[in-house]
Amino acid sequence: MTSDDAYSALLAHLKTTAALQGVSGLLSWDQEAMMPPKGGEQRAEQAGALSAVLHGRQTDPQMGDWLAAIDVGPLDAAGQANVREAKRSFQRATKVPTELAEALAKTSSRSQRVWADARANDSVADFLPALSEILSLAREYAACLAEGSGSDALYDALMDDFEPGGSASETAAMFGRLRAGLSDLRGRIAEAGGDAPRLDGTFPKEAQLALAKRLADVFGYDSAAGRIDLVVHPFCSGTRGDVRITTRVDPENPFDCLYSTVHETGHALYEQGLPPALAWQPAGTHASMGVHESQSRICENQLARSEPFCGWLFSQMTETFGDIGVGTARDFYRAVNRVSPGYIRTEADEVHYNLHIMMRFELERALIAGDLQVGDLEAAWNDRFRADFGVEVDKPSNGVLQDVHWSVGLFGYFPTYTLGNVYAGALMAAIRRDMPDLDSALAAGDVSGAVSWLRKHVHAAGSVARPADVIATACGGTADETALLDYLNGKFSALYPNVC
Amino acid sequence: MTSDDAYSALLAHLKTTAALQGVSGLLSWDQEAMMPPKGGEQRAEQAGALSAVLHGRQTDPQMGDWLAAIDVGPLDAAGQANVREAKRSFQRATKVPTELAEALAKTSSRSQRVWADARANDSVADFLPALSEILSLAREYAACLAEGSGSDALYDALMDDFEPGGSASETAAMFGRLRAGLSDLRGRIAEAGGDAPRLDGTFPKEAQLALAKRLADVFGYDSAAGRIDLVVHPFCSGTRGDVRITTRVDPENPFDCLYSTVHETGHALYEQGLPPALAWQPAGTHASMGVHESQSRICENQLARSEPFCGWLFSQMTETFGDIGVGTARDFYRAVNRVSPGYIRTEADEVHYNLHIMMRFELERALIAGDLQVGDLEAAWNDRFRADFGVEVDKPSNGVLQDVHWSVGLFGYFPTYTLGNVYAGALMAAIRRDMPDLDSALAAGDVSGAVSWLRKHVHAAGSVARPADVIATACGGTADETALLDYLNGKFSALYPNVC
Repeated sequence: MTSDDAYSALLAHLKTTAALQGVSGLLSWDQEAMMPPKGGEQRAEQAGALSAVLHGRQTDPQMGDWLAAIDVGPLDAAGQANVREAKRSFQRATKVPTELAEALAKTSSRSQRVWADARANDSVADFLPALSEILSLAREYAACLAEGSGSDALYDALMDDFEPGGSASETAAMFGRLRAGLSDLRGRIAEAGGDAPRLDGTFPKEAQLALAKRLADVFGYDSAAGRIDLVVHPFCSGTRGDVRITTRVDPENPFDCLYSTVHETGHALYEQGLPPALAWQPAGTHASMGVHESQSRICENQLARSEPFCGWLFSQMTETFGDIGVGTARDFYRAVNRVSPGYIRTEADEVHYNLHIMMRFELERALIAGDLQVGDLEAAWNDRFRADFGVEVDKPSNGVLQDVHWSVGLFGYFPTYTLGNVYAGALMAAIRRDMPDLDSALAAGDVSGAVSWLRKHVHAAGSVARPADVIATACGGTADETALLDYLNGKFSALYPNVC
Repeated sequence: MTSDDAYSALLAHLKTTAALQGVSGLLSWDQEAMMPPKGGEQRAEQAGALSAVLHGRQTDPQMGDWLAAIDVGPLDAAGQANVREAKRSFQRATKVPTELAEALAKTSSRSQRVWADARANDSVADFLPALSEILSLAREYAACLAEGSGSDALYDALMDDFEPGGSASETAAMFGRLRAGLSDLRGRIAEAGGDAPRLDGTFPKEAQLALAKRLADVFGYDSAAGRIDLVVHPFCSGTRGDVRITTRVDPENPFDCLYSTVHETGHALYEQGLPPALAWQPAGTHASMGVHESQSRICENQLARSEPFCGWLFSQMTETFGDIGVGTARDFYRAVNRVSPGYIRTEADEVHYNLHIMMRFELERALIAGDLQVGDLEAAWNDRFRADFGVEVDKPSNGVLQDVHWSVGLFGYFPTYTLGNVYAGALMAAIRRDMPDLDSALAAGDVSGAVSWLRKHVHAAGSVARPADVIATACGGTADETALLDYLNGKFSALYPNVC
């Protein structure tokens, strides 16, 4: 077998695998957005059957033969990235015994139900046995993949599934600096006191959805290559010609629908903007979950929560809903960016959001390292929350039981949210450097320049380079927390003028 | 390997295969009902990849080993049916070379596009080369499966895919008697002259859909185990806990939406009513396409187009739409059952529908047998149409180019439509025998008794017995065309009182 033949066979195999992964994604989308209540049992069988097919393809010994026969020397950068990613996923798939993969899938499905009940009953004790079991399987999984034997070897292996090349210790160092900056800003805002205006009005469902679709359009979402539907927890699904956004409507709070739509639009733009020439190839997919999150957050926060854009949105809101309880663009901007130390991560403002994430990262890192026992998790959570937010957790559903992630074995995922915010901060600084007139466009509701910049520098890059390099190349230098902190300090000092 | 072990292994294999077939069905539903315009290219890859997985499972040599090791003697009727159907589908899958199956799939996809263009341009000549090609592949496919060498051996093999055990010569004999009866009735109605009333009013889309959903409810459709969406060509998809109906809305003609919804509801009731104990087993699926069509047609015609039910529906219509242009229940019933010799099969009334089908059966049977050449098809169609309908075909899109079936290689499918109508006639006679008070229930919009009868005698039977036997057992005797003819003669003689 020549190297060329092996490379062609590998790409053909990966294309079919990617097509079946797309089917798997469609099953999940359908389950959340379309499936009738009684369809769950069949769907579980369907998803399980497809997952077994995928596992078979991902561990196909032919993959090993092709990879061994390929000489990467003559390949271009994309070709080398294809081989790199194929090797990475083949090794990860083959190092994990099938029985362990199946045990993880089954246990996580069961433990998610246990978690949902425990959260509804506000009983941490009800969840702990399931958490112990899934944690133990996650550590076993990590041990199959870990390189080296340092205290973060297991966590690094888990994180690599979501942020290739990510490192717990480097992440922790950066998060330490970010937390210091955010705690300081949070404290100064709290001390400054005063509250921001709130919306007050009538926000009919259909009008909210129409404006949300308008926002998706404004951001450049190609609705001929996707659709928008309602779900309980919004997400984005699919790639390239079929990227589906989901949203939800709270009749009391239109920001929920509007900003979650812009968030998911940011994810969707990334998938719709991947390099066409690399369709069906590993190098043509998104670079990492962190890079993905940077695209959703920069759209949602740096662009759609900016003062000029809020000015334009204020006019759209009053046109759509009439009296919304705030009378000026400035007050609207203040309402959009109201800072408040809440319990719930998904409702957090820009100042508090990353504090939520970083405490989860710290706790799960300790759990995986064996430095924290599940029996001590609630106390550790509550201590950390008091220290970071200055508030006592009132009940577990507002605390350690609020997120689904750990119940389904997602350890190593949380840090990608904050990495995304850090990347978004760095990308926005680069955009402002390249586009000095950005604010006047934003004031007219025109984000096309900024989105084009992202398309060119991030979306079109696919995953030819590793995630940190994709961002560094886009920004013209390594991305760290400073740009995000500068942005947040500048924005919120101006918003809360008593902040010293 | 013991017989028990082999049987268990076979059932497990078939369950996973059925789950993946369900995924394939979902892909099709999504493509028609949900997929955005630019999703087509990805979807083709996804469907192709899944279809290859299914082909691999259906031809898995282990299937042959298990089937050889199973002693059916100790199995119950359902178990024996499982083995019978598994053997049947394994033999059909393995007798057809993979290259031929792939050529059929690719050619039919291409030839469907050619057909759509040819129909749009009303050019038979544009379609003939593609038709020749797909016909030749269909005959090659049939030759792989044919038993014996009679003139109908190929056609019987094709028909068996849709109506197991169906026979072209027996079907032709029955269709001959049915055509004589229908031609006679059609001629008498035409001679009698006079036209039925037509609706006239405003029929807003949302109101049509709401009433259509009401009708689905009335028929017992479990909406927690399904959903209703809009498509171009309505169909029903899925089974058991997830059976999705599709419909469409013509603002000028509410009957299109309402009766196609009832039709698809009939299909859906069958799938929702299959025997729970035989879930995921071949014996637990529908018996045939003909039996399926009987369930849709009995709901649509014998029940929902009956005079008592139309009386109830008239009150619903006037309540929903106000003035609908007909003032009495009797005139509404006449409007619902208006007889008119149109060109288009899918718009045909109960008197003409089967004439459409039977001419297609006759023509495709001759094509497959080699007794008719594709170059002569249009003339044969037009001759047959003139003879059966008393009207000249005005253009190919109203004639030989109107249906998609042949372009995608569906030969042997058409007769199942009329078999379904014949079965529906026989089942309705049995229902009326068992439920002498049916009409008073129908007059109150209550079809639950009739639907319960169908559940018990047809849906719950699955495919433990062969299709003809399922119907014969339900009816208490072999089903032939006489019950359908008696029903139509009685109904339309009363509707067109000048019919002699």
